[in-house]
Amino acid sequence: MPRFALKIEYDGRPFAGWQAQADQPSVQGAVEAALARLDSGFAAGARIAAAGRTDAGVHATAQVAHADLARDWDPFRLAEALNFHLKPAPVAVLAAARVPDDFHARFSATERRYLFRLQARRAPATHDRGLVWQVLNPLDPDAMRQGAAHLIGLHDFTTFRSSICQSASPVKTLDEITIEETPIPQGREYRFHLRARSFLHNQVRSIVGTLERVGARAWPADRVAEALKARDRAACGPVCPPNGLYLCGVGYPQDPFGN
Amino acid sequence: MPRFALKIEYDGRPFAGWQAQADQPSVQGAVEAALARLDSGFAAGARIAAAGRTDAGVHATAQVAHADLARDWDPFRLAEALNFHLKPAPVAVLAAARVPDDFHARFSATERRYLFRLQARRAPATHDRGLVWQVLNPLDPDAMRQGAAHLIGLHDFTTFRSSICQSASPVKTLDEITIEETPIPQGREYRFHLRARSFLHNQVRSIVGTLERVGARAWPADRVAEALKARDRAACGPVCPPNGLYLCGVGYPQDPFGN
Repeated sequence: MPRFALKIEYDGRPFAGWQAQADQPSVQGAVEAALARLDSGFAAGARIAAAGRTDAGVHATAQVAHADLARDWDPFRLAEALNFHLKPAPVAVLAAARVPDDFHARFSATERRYLFRLQARRAPATHDRGLVWQVLNPLDPDAMRQGAAHLIGLHDFTTFRSSICQSASPVKTLDEITIEETPIPQGREYRFHLRARSFLHNQVRSIVGTLERVGARAWPADRVAEALKARDRAACGPVCPPNGLYLCGVGYPQDPFGN
Repeated sequence: MPRFALKIEYDGRPFAGWQAQADQPSVQGAVEAALARLDSGFAAGARIAAAGRTDAGVHATAQVAHADLARDWDPFRLAEALNFHLKPAPVAVLAAARVPDDFHARFSATERRYLFRLQARRAPATHDRGLVWQVLNPLDPDAMRQGAAHLIGLHDFTTFRSSICQSASPVKTLDEITIEETPIPQGREYRFHLRARSFLHNQVRSIVGTLERVGARAWPADRVAEALKARDRAACGPVCPPNGLYLCGVGYPQDPFGN
């Protein structure tokens, strides 16, 4: 059976997360339901696998999943057909590609990129509601960058890991955290860009929630180093809400979408 | 009674437009309902006036309205109190300012700025659904700029005016149309920036709908000049949907918000 990779964008607001669950709307469920409209295997219950199983309320601009289909679809027509059947769910297949049988959306991935959008202003968000995490007062981006610098590299990230994380090891290499500051009407937006081979459960939200404390000057930047060293979940800052988080890229040794 | 100017941001999706209407949700109605919670005059039915009466589905990042209040509010506290009472409507007061009694949000305005967001890609919008107008194929921005150039300056805009427009004259001066092109995942976004002292009803949507025809190469750029010259509504291209339109600035001889 030919295997296809799908690049998927979604608005996480109406979903209980990526992963299919009984009686709860999921992104995986929406994509599988669309696949079931055009493929006998999915009509009979076949499943897709994804690079990152995003939590409830988390968004994606470039999630990657793979599916084995009965027919050798033209990739462009496959994407078009899936988008037709996905309506009106806020899920879009941005691209489809034929991939080798040993390609696995999750296990072949060598890099994940996340974006976190944090807005600081007094007035509530309107167009961006549910698409950003909002705080009321401006933050100090340089202090957040100083705090973030302690987290770059190979570390035991036990402090920044959910208690229900299923990863075999808390030791991960964080390749990048950059923080961009941009103006928004009557406020500021801070965009956190994180990149690693893989992340622990809640790692990005634990890091951003902790760095926000630094940006608000409630924590000195060095306390991030101490928290990391403690290897203790209790040393973490507050885990921030999911609404600002976007899975925005997955890297493979060879990009299946040819970019 | 002290007069206040309010700078208002809103998501137009759930509203039948700015203007209060019986039995239909309006932005004006939402703001007046919040004012009624803190001012006896508004509790008794006082009204606000706005710089631009946006249509159903049209957004704003900086609408301006004025209100006469019984109390001499601290402007910051007034904005905070209104935002509290506006919840959960996607309407936010970005700033409030005390203005002279002869300030009128509509009649004192000397400039309006609009943004129109047009996205071209095959896959449907997810996060931006209802916040942009989407077409399927890429457009030629240079052709659109050539078409737009014909509209700059003082003209009789009868062609680009709704048949229900109540403006006394179709003669207006269009000071600016610039078109920015930016990449979006698997597509392109075209941002039209328009600026004039005032606009006719549906003028921006008539212009953008016409320029899209030029960008799609269905119209040569010169046909925009012919359409303008015709002074005939039938010569206009298709009026585009409201979803991509944002009132993003109102100018006054003296900025009431002190920027």
